[in-house]
Amino acid sequence: MAIHLITGGAGFIGVNLARALVGRGEHVVIIDDMSRGRPENLGDLADNPKVSVWVLDCTNALALVDRIRALSEVPSAIWHMAANSDIPAGIADPRIDLSNTFLTTFGILEAMKTCGVPTLNFASSSAIYGDFGDTVIHEDIGPLEPISNYGAMKLASEAQIRAAVEAFLPRANIFRFPNVIGTPATHGVIWDFCRKLKDTPGILTVLGDGSQQKAYLHVDDLVAAMLKIASLDGTYRLFNIGPTDDGVTVRFIAETVRDRAAPSATIQYGQGGRGWVGDVPKFRYSVDRLLGIGWSPTRTSSEAVIHAVDEIVRQELSV
Amino acid sequence: MAIHLITGGAGFIGVNLARALVGRGEHVVIIDDMSRGRPENLGDLADNPKVSVWVLDCTNALALVDRIRALSEVPSAIWHMAANSDIPAGIADPRIDLSNTFLTTFGILEAMKTCGVPTLNFASSSAIYGDFGDTVIHEDIGPLEPISNYGAMKLASEAQIRAAVEAFLPRANIFRFPNVIGTPATHGVIWDFCRKLKDTPGILTVLGDGSQQKAYLHVDDLVAAMLKIASLDGTYRLFNIGPTDDGVTVRFIAETVRDRAAPSATIQYGQGGRGWVGDVPKFRYSVDRLLGIGWSPTRTSSEAVIHAVDEIVRQELSV
Repeated sequence: MAIHLITGGAGFIGVNLARALVGRGEHVVIIDDMSRGRPENLGDLADNPKVSVWVLDCTNALALVDRIRALSEVPSAIWHMAANSDIPAGIADPRIDLSNTFLTTFGILEAMKTCGVPTLNFASSSAIYGDFGDTVIHEDIGPLEPISNYGAMKLASEAQIRAAVEAFLPRANIFRFPNVIGTPATHGVIWDFCRKLKDTPGILTVLGDGSQQKAYLHVDDLVAAMLKIASLDGTYRLFNIGPTDDGVTVRFIAETVRDRAAPSATIQYGQGGRGWVGDVPKFRYSVDRLLGIGWSPTRTSSEAVIHAVDEIVRQELSV
Repeated sequence: MAIHLITGGAGFIGVNLARALVGRGEHVVIIDDMSRGRPENLGDLADNPKVSVWVLDCTNALALVDRIRALSEVPSAIWHMAANSDIPAGIADPRIDLSNTFLTTFGILEAMKTCGVPTLNFASSSAIYGDFGDTVIHEDIGPLEPISNYGAMKLASEAQIRAAVEAFLPRANIFRFPNVIGTPATHGVIWDFCRKLKDTPGILTVLGDGSQQKAYLHVDDLVAAMLKIASLDGTYRLFNIGPTDDGVTVRFIAETVRDRAAPSATIQYGQGGRGWVGDVPKFRYSVDRLLGIGWSPTRTSSEAVIHAVDEIVRQELSV
């Protein structure tokens, strides 16, 4: 038995990770400021005696230290999933990503140093790469030119973690997430489309011309990859996580949502290949490093989308 | 005539840049919180009618906006040279680099957005690369693994600037500095050695075994490179700046200082190839991109060291 702390633990990925760790017999502390995470996301986890919940802002390192010191033992790992997940909001106000995406990392590292927590598992992002067009992106590629404040503050977090490994931190694993889908959905393209259909039944408006293509991973496969990576030895490991295909278009997602939720609705596309400033229009990920340690996804991008659309339509539209 | 703002303008590089810009007929505003910059570094610039001085902490974007708005015209550029220059201090307390090296950049970008300043020229660092051993480091290399908080917060700054270019900033030039030497010296290996000889004449102690090899550029050549890059068109440009040789060892620097300042002193070396946590022991820079635009250094690393030792010994020891 060990204690695992999950920041952003009441958010989409945090909840799925918590459920997997509890399923392995671990104790889990869910840390969330409940700005986007929601208590109802926890479901049956809320009543599990192996799960604690701390409502806490991780930029407050001192408060985090106080709570960690009150535990029965030093936690074996912090899984840092907390971040601003609303990229356009972060572009409108850079202080959102500064605080929620980077200063949380900074505060957590300070608390880990003070308390001697040995392992940090960090949710980074494909957004740190910026726009490589058709080039396949492996972990060692350069230059790194994030085009959103979200991507910038994820890269800042990676950099601060790497320096911490040099100075005091025994172990860090960096996960560069792709687009991840599933439930409980709180944001993202499928969720957006469901909300739009709820607001204006019969019509689904799409930002951009629908040609943007991205890879999507179901959260089940993401959690399995994180647990696999965390089971390895080593002081600093960094992995792209994603499916092995080149992804699906926004058009495919829009049609899948429409077909599942409102077959008679009309889809209206906008102009151009980008949805918003900071959105990377196309994206090809190499996950060879991850395949090399024996993980492989159980669903392709299109299978993940079809499955997640079913889950999210049920969550949002109850149909 | 145009107005140029230089943050860290009372520091080592800022003063040299200010002098060069004034020499070209530009108006210069020196911005410095005077934490490490010193009024006496300004020399004759302090009395020049084309030079203003604002004592200001750039993390305070609102104060910066107020001062910029009181100018007769929108400045044509901000040269952001302000940072924590004491790498070991930043490793002992990460908040120093967070505030002085990164949040200054963040505040400056906010002020530029508000005031419509069109160009940011940024002093980044070779420290963003981390330790590549014998590999020659070109600008597009990866992975970027800074091993000091200073390097981490310079990389964070680059990332935030890149995202700003995507969102609102018309133009940014990133200069990845090597080790830069000259006067007025406020820190660095030559300055350290001079101070040590002043404190304990007759003996010069060196951290590490003296085998660390780095490239050094004289500040005159650095300023010429920055002005050359800033004269180009383009929205986002990034350059390594450095000499074309592979550098000199700490042993060479120690002996040059000893020979110039105290020929009878004994040099005592420590153990190992690294001076401190976060210090990169060896370093090979590609400056092909910079040579490609027609700049070339007037001094090699060894010539720069010999010249700077002469300048710094005169500054520190008056011999």
